[in-house]
Amino acid sequence: MASSGVWAGKIPLQTAYELEDVDGSGATQRSELERIGYLGETPASHKHNPLAAHFELHIEQGPVLESGARKIGVVHGVQAYKWFVVEVIGRACHTGTTPFSNRADALLAASRMIAESHAIATRHGGLASTGVLTIPTSSFNVVPGKVTFSLDIRSPKDEIVSSMEQEIRSAFQAIASGTGALLKDSTPGMPCEVKISTFTDSPAVNFHQDCIECIDAAAEGAFGSEALSRVQKQMTSGAGHDSAYTSYVCPTAMIFVPCRDGISHNPREYTTPADCAGGAQVLMGSVLRYDRLRAERNV
Amino acid sequence: MASSGVWAGKIPLQTAYELEDVDGSGATQRSELERIGYLGETPASHKHNPLAAHFELHIEQGPVLESGARKIGVVHGVQAYKWFVVEVIGRACHTGTTPFSNRADALLAASRMIAESHAIATRHGGLASTGVLTIPTSSFNVVPGKVTFSLDIRSPKDEIVSSMEQEIRSAFQAIASGTGALLKDSTPGMPCEVKISTFTDSPAVNFHQDCIECIDAAAEGAFGSEALSRVQKQMTSGAGHDSAYTSYVCPTAMIFVPCRDGISHNPREYTTPADCAGGAQVLMGSVLRYDRLRAERNV
Repeated sequence: MASSGVWAGKIPLQTAYELEDVDGSGATQRSELERIGYLGETPASHKHNPLAAHFELHIEQGPVLESGARKIGVVHGVQAYKWFVVEVIGRACHTGTTPFSNRADALLAASRMIAESHAIATRHGGLASTGVLTIPTSSFNVVPGKVTFSLDIRSPKDEIVSSMEQEIRSAFQAIASGTGALLKDSTPGMPCEVKISTFTDSPAVNFHQDCIECIDAAAEGAFGSEALSRVQKQMTSGAGHDSAYTSYVCPTAMIFVPCRDGISHNPREYTTPADCAGGAQVLMGSVLRYDRLRAERNV
Repeated sequence: MASSGVWAGKIPLQTAYELEDVDGSGATQRSELERIGYLGETPASHKHNPLAAHFELHIEQGPVLESGARKIGVVHGVQAYKWFVVEVIGRACHTGTTPFSNRADALLAASRMIAESHAIATRHGGLASTGVLTIPTSSFNVVPGKVTFSLDIRSPKDEIVSSMEQEIRSAFQAIASGTGALLKDSTPGMPCEVKISTFTDSPAVNFHQDCIECIDAAAEGAFGSEALSRVQKQMTSGAGHDSAYTSYVCPTAMIFVPCRDGISHNPREYTTPADCAGGAQVLMGSVLRYDRLRAERNV
């Protein structure tokens, strides 16, 4: 998404150029563009190269369309998300010689926080996920003195992400201090310290109503009497996309097609040829309809 | 403890000789004994070199004596412990595009298991600890598909370790299948698989009543009228010690002295000179009393 970010003026060109390869080779986005002969002279800028509108066709990367036997998703926006790094600091001690009441068990506290963040997200109809958890020094017979984990919270609505964050921050403090939820039936221990730092803050993106209506109409045109059972209206994208950036500077919306088991960014990623064709058909219909709209409005 | 294990006939000599340095240098216990000139000709065997009794003085390695302002602990045995490796297998998926109901979140399940093992140990008055947790491939925006963690459970009584193990195994299965405890207020997901393998099984050790009585009497002799407030009777060692091995072949018991903050195996380990002297005094008194006992019994 770095390129669309530059085009939309949301990421400085130099920042994108200097992005380094994760393999540690020192190669940058710029050096690789040069190497493959793609560093052209046309400015990557919506001011120099404007678009009248942007329609993006993508696999869903999730299970919703497939599980509902839908063929097209009309995407109204990209959900908001925030990423945090949570550090829990307790005190390392021997697993055999230290009574529960004398422990400040950083991993036990982190475990409760992860379970609690899931419960809070459930109440809000949002998402909360931890993908990374590390214990700097770990051993079978040492109660961890420090644990660091990631927290990813999402919702189509900014205000829900904000409410979830508030609740999670106060629940994590309570768990760390030993007064929080999930402590029923457990021995209270000594307090841990918790530090929560924000790593990424990506507000919700709402796509353009004109584009959404064009996709709706194109999908109805493509599926006819089956549209009601084959088209999933009002979807929100869970992942980020180029459309999130283009939507800041031109009317934008997205079309989803199903993918097997919701799997993406993986060799097992798969969408049937028929579903790809259905998506392309709706994409073409959407562009033609939007073009007619522009002509009528004489834009 | 390898040497006392050989002496007691519980570890084959060859196994102890071949133990390799954890630094990966290839040095073995035998090569290091040769290098420092300690590979003598006297057999390390209780048959060739019997002891009439074994008294061991040690720092507590825990906070009980210090927090109670006690100076001596009379150790009645070493608690039982079992170590397990727990593998939770779910399905990796995108944190943004996958609804909770479609997830098999291995880390969420592992977190609930860790919290639940603590609750189960609390109910039994035992210990449960996780020191190691690894996620083979982890990323901020990927729900972990696999998590492996250690579980260390302990109690002075073998039957309590056994009951805890049974309860933990069934609770972990229930959590993995999505029907277990701690699921209140959470969205049920798809089932994970859990595999629990036993890594170490160390039964409880009970020290010899004669030795314990000698330590009791020696502590009372050393502390006089203060013995009631200075001597902690009926302690159980949380960690393993040489005495666990010697107790299989001769009357054995242990004496604990306090250590600062319960810290051991660490440069911060500290016991005051006065407490060391108190421990040595009780050790001498115990040996003299036991010797007199042997003489009286004409053993």
